[in-house]
Amino acid sequence: MGVNFFNRDTRDIEFLLFEHLGIDKLLTYDAYQDFSVDDFRMIIDEAMKVAREVLGPAMQDGDQQGCIYEDGKVSVPESFHECWKVLVENGWIAVSNNPEFGGQGLPAVVGGIVGEIFMGANLAMMSYPGLAVGNGRLIENFGTDEDRALFVEKMYTGVWGGTMCLTEPDAGSDVGWLRTKAMPDPDAGDPRIYKIEGTKRFITVGEQDLTENIIHLVLARIEGSPPGTKGISLFIVPKIRVNPDGSLGEPNDVYCGGIEHKMGILGSATCTLNFGENGKCRGILLGEPNSGMAKMFQMMNESRMGVGLMGLTLAASAYDAALTYAKEREQGPPFTDRKADRVPIIRHEDVRRMLMNLKSGTEAMRAMIGKLFYLMDVSERDPDEAERRKALQQVELLTPLVKAYCSDFGYALIRDAIQILGGVGYCREFPIEQYSRDAKINSIWEGTTYIQSLDLVGRKLGMEGGKVFQDWIQGVMSFTSENKDDRDFGPDFKLLFKAAQATGDFAMRYMQYFQGGKPGLIALSATRFLECFSEVLMGQLILEQGLLARERLKEVDTDSSDGIFYRGKVETAKYFCRNILTNVFARHMSLQQEDTSAIDIPEEAF
Amino acid sequence: MGVNFFNRDTRDIEFLLFEHLGIDKLLTYDAYQDFSVDDFRMIIDEAMKVAREVLGPAMQDGDQQGCIYEDGKVSVPESFHECWKVLVENGWIAVSNNPEFGGQGLPAVVGGIVGEIFMGANLAMMSYPGLAVGNGRLIENFGTDEDRALFVEKMYTGVWGGTMCLTEPDAGSDVGWLRTKAMPDPDAGDPRIYKIEGTKRFITVGEQDLTENIIHLVLARIEGSPPGTKGISLFIVPKIRVNPDGSLGEPNDVYCGGIEHKMGILGSATCTLNFGENGKCRGILLGEPNSGMAKMFQMMNESRMGVGLMGLTLAASAYDAALTYAKEREQGPPFTDRKADRVPIIRHEDVRRMLMNLKSGTEAMRAMIGKLFYLMDVSERDPDEAERRKALQQVELLTPLVKAYCSDFGYALIRDAIQILGGVGYCREFPIEQYSRDAKINSIWEGTTYIQSLDLVGRKLGMEGGKVFQDWIQGVMSFTSENKDDRDFGPDFKLLFKAAQATGDFAMRYMQYFQGGKPGLIALSATRFLECFSEVLMGQLILEQGLLARERLKEVDTDSSDGIFYRGKVETAKYFCRNILTNVFARHMSLQQEDTSAIDIPEEAF
Repeated sequence: MGVNFFNRDTRDIEFLLFEHLGIDKLLTYDAYQDFSVDDFRMIIDEAMKVAREVLGPAMQDGDQQGCIYEDGKVSVPESFHECWKVLVENGWIAVSNNPEFGGQGLPAVVGGIVGEIFMGANLAMMSYPGLAVGNGRLIENFGTDEDRALFVEKMYTGVWGGTMCLTEPDAGSDVGWLRTKAMPDPDAGDPRIYKIEGTKRFITVGEQDLTENIIHLVLARIEGSPPGTKGISLFIVPKIRVNPDGSLGEPNDVYCGGIEHKMGILGSATCTLNFGENGKCRGILLGEPNSGMAKMFQMMNESRMGVGLMGLTLAASAYDAALTYAKEREQGPPFTDRKADRVPIIRHEDVRRMLMNLKSGTEAMRAMIGKLFYLMDVSERDPDEAERRKALQQVELLTPLVKAYCSDFGYALIRDAIQILGGVGYCREFPIEQYSRDAKINSIWEGTTYIQSLDLVGRKLGMEGGKVFQDWIQGVMSFTSENKDDRDFGPDFKLLFKAAQATGDFAMRYMQYFQGGKPGLIALSATRFLECFSEVLMGQLILEQGLLARERLKEVDTDSSDGIFYRGKVETAKYFCRNILTNVFARHMSLQQEDTSAIDIPEEAF
Repeated sequence: MGVNFFNRDTRDIEFLLFEHLGIDKLLTYDAYQDFSVDDFRMIIDEAMKVAREVLGPAMQDGDQQGCIYEDGKVSVPESFHECWKVLVENGWIAVSNNPEFGGQGLPAVVGGIVGEIFMGANLAMMSYPGLAVGNGRLIENFGTDEDRALFVEKMYTGVWGGTMCLTEPDAGSDVGWLRTKAMPDPDAGDPRIYKIEGTKRFITVGEQDLTENIIHLVLARIEGSPPGTKGISLFIVPKIRVNPDGSLGEPNDVYCGGIEHKMGILGSATCTLNFGENGKCRGILLGEPNSGMAKMFQMMNESRMGVGLMGLTLAASAYDAALTYAKEREQGPPFTDRKADRVPIIRHEDVRRMLMNLKSGTEAMRAMIGKLFYLMDVSERDPDEAERRKALQQVELLTPLVKAYCSDFGYALIRDAIQILGGVGYCREFPIEQYSRDAKINSIWEGTTYIQSLDLVGRKLGMEGGKVFQDWIQGVMSFTSENKDDRDFGPDFKLLFKAAQATGDFAMRYMQYFQGGKPGLIALSATRFLECFSEVLMGQLILEQGLLARERLKEVDTDSSDGIFYRGKVETAKYFCRNILTNVFARHMSLQQEDTSAIDIPEEAF
């Protein structure tokens, strides 16, 4: 085992869960009535222990060893076997999944925090359980009783792994063009069984030596189905066939043709998979024919939340590492006190500025993600149907923000962490350059930033005739009007008000552009709209936290650890609004130019 | 030899040199009268050939093999030996240096372009000649006749390498705290010879097996000298002592204690050097005692221009690679034409947006850097003293912009290039992830972004009582007023005017903050001021180019290759102003908040 770099001050997590979101409300739901807030605290502590003692020490190992491909087999980094064993034996694979199939049944928001902790310690490692569980949940939701009985528990308990097979060499963002075929297989004696033929690329954990079997979920087109996404079906394709009694049968003609050599997440095997090279690959149709995309979207939406979480947590890990360094490393005096002696660089103004980017940025992202996970719980468990429905709409509206914004912003923040360490940050003896390399994948996998932006603009903005978005923005507006003269946060609420206005103006203009035949202006600015929307949402949440922290300050000694924490939250809210939220105005200024130069330029002039 | 990924459409380079800057003016100077514009074109063509055939193919090799350390020796990647040979044999080591000592005597601006081409093909490799030449130039400028005769030609012609040894384990940005000592060495029989003792870290190309000797320039404190930067002297410390006749003598007690394992530039050896472990290290004092920092600054200023160039050129290489891919890779229809068939992704709006970021960003940086190199030539060669002086002041004012802005922006742009390729961009089979890893060092070495910003704010802004800055901003203002109603660029000139105003407001506020005892507000926003200043400068230059291109369009067939190029330049100028220059407004909005939360927050709350 290597050195552990992972640490996380869980105070902000606890503040979010127990003070800001107030997740004790969830304990009133039937599904969670056996839990207590103390249970949640204990689980977080235990997760921290596993992260520090098991996952963290395997992070650099995993990066240095990487995965090894030989003759269709993939060996994962040695230390990952120990990690896997600990996760399996202690029930950490499927923390917020159905206990009926071996999950721990925790609320999604607590599962999300465990995910933050585990992925912050070792992202590459966590791709193995992550895909097994996402995949298992899809089978749980859409499979027959038999499918559920055969597969789900084994995936939730780490006996088998899982993958999602969408991408092909010639169909990436453009899934509708996939070529993998499914043909009825009369020999199988079961009309749900098809023969599968095709090649998938960039399949995360598509092959590994952690589990005795891997259950692939494969998108393929049944011969004769319509072209495009409407003719895609989803198949359960085990690496080794599974007998009706659950025992393993023959190999299923799935061959790993190679792995990618990547910038980061080197411990996570990214595979090319060849299905049916010898005509002997069998897949079980999951649900109805041609319903594959809709089903895969369910998994993708959860995965997208997961990717947003990765963006957050790697930035948070980078913050922790940079903070530790900044407190220890001494250099000359700060700018504002040139006569001082050497000081820890945390007293240098620019280092503090970068630390505040990291602190306020990660705390704002955590608030946004936590809020969404919480809403997922409400949408699934609240007894009131209207509440469930409202929560679900918000989850749908905001999921692309979490995925895209946290991916890009998380990566950008890690750059600041490298910068705080200077030359040392560029070296592999410290973990930050690895966080950066690992984090770069987030804006690409599970749908690029642009795909998320189009989902937001094309599908989400118009939900309920635009009402979901309008309600949200009205909520921000009234929040800002109520507080615009606040003695501490007055300027921040004014900025938030203007930023919400600018974001609303994006949406208004988009309607005009749609109607006025100017879709190019939407496509060119959609990623910016998503960023503005995200920053306004985060501004709202971080100001809610600031107000709450100020209230709490009245109850505690301001020099106690809680007092210092709350004072920090107050400054963090200000910092976010005054230094990050302001980016909205640059993007809005660009929007107002209605610039089409990127479309107008002759292609040959590039 | 590996695969070459390097290519560069040199049309923009030629436009900059021969149309925008009009460097034929330089041919009127005595030093350049033997050159012609055709010579410069030929040199660029030849440099492109070397880059494509020799340096480019060694780039991935260098990254994969890295440098190997064993018992004090460093082996560079194998293919770098061939590169070195070609550079040496064809006189490419010191292209714009004094011909008296084996340099090629080209103008700095042409040398800069050769640097762009070579470093864009293989940054790690180019660190070896880069440091030899920078070091040689310092000896040429400040050494005795004997020093010059002994060292300079050998360094300009690649017989010996060179380094600059500033950083120590406990003194990074804070050079004044260095501990390396120099003591008189009576045994040496020459009062200029001192005994050197100390450890230097992060020494680029501090040890290698390309040259028979390495000449280190070492900052050290002569015993009894004042503390801080005022007591630092500079010493010539050869790895192997050099006899008065130029032949090699005994080893000089310089030992390489190890190399760093880094995120990128793996082919460039980053060394720890121990001087005088056995009390036998001799250094020759360069210039007067305690004048070391001032001398090192001369080299650093040139190096800073070089680092800015690295930031530009890696982004430009990433642009070229992303462009090639975007023209070839087919996916589904664009947003604005959903019924189209598959198209090359260069027709996707968001891909075009990112390509325009890369195109306009790199061309604007190239214009800024080219302008500065041109001004360096003027400052050294113009017969009119007032012209020389004015040019020098501009070089001094703007050098920190080139260093810091191009480092950070170049790195940010490469992220877009990765994104254009999607998953493929994350893989090592393509060069872009390496460009990204290589580029990250730029914001750190040769003085971090913050150090550059303090140099700008603390030293440069006040030059001539602020007149140099004021004159520059007045120049931008009159340029914008003259053109504010331009039929094509009217909106762009309005944006530039407002951006220049905002940048001027930064400077005004800084005076108030200095006088009003609020230096913290300066320190917290200095990097942003530098960014605003840079973007206004680039906006000015890119609009000059846009106007010029529009003029040229009148003279050519708009569908000819020149016509397409000029139309591209017009759109590029618009894109830059409407999409990148707008960032100035977000930073200015932040400045107006006068936020001190990053200072106010209790240290323990981080």
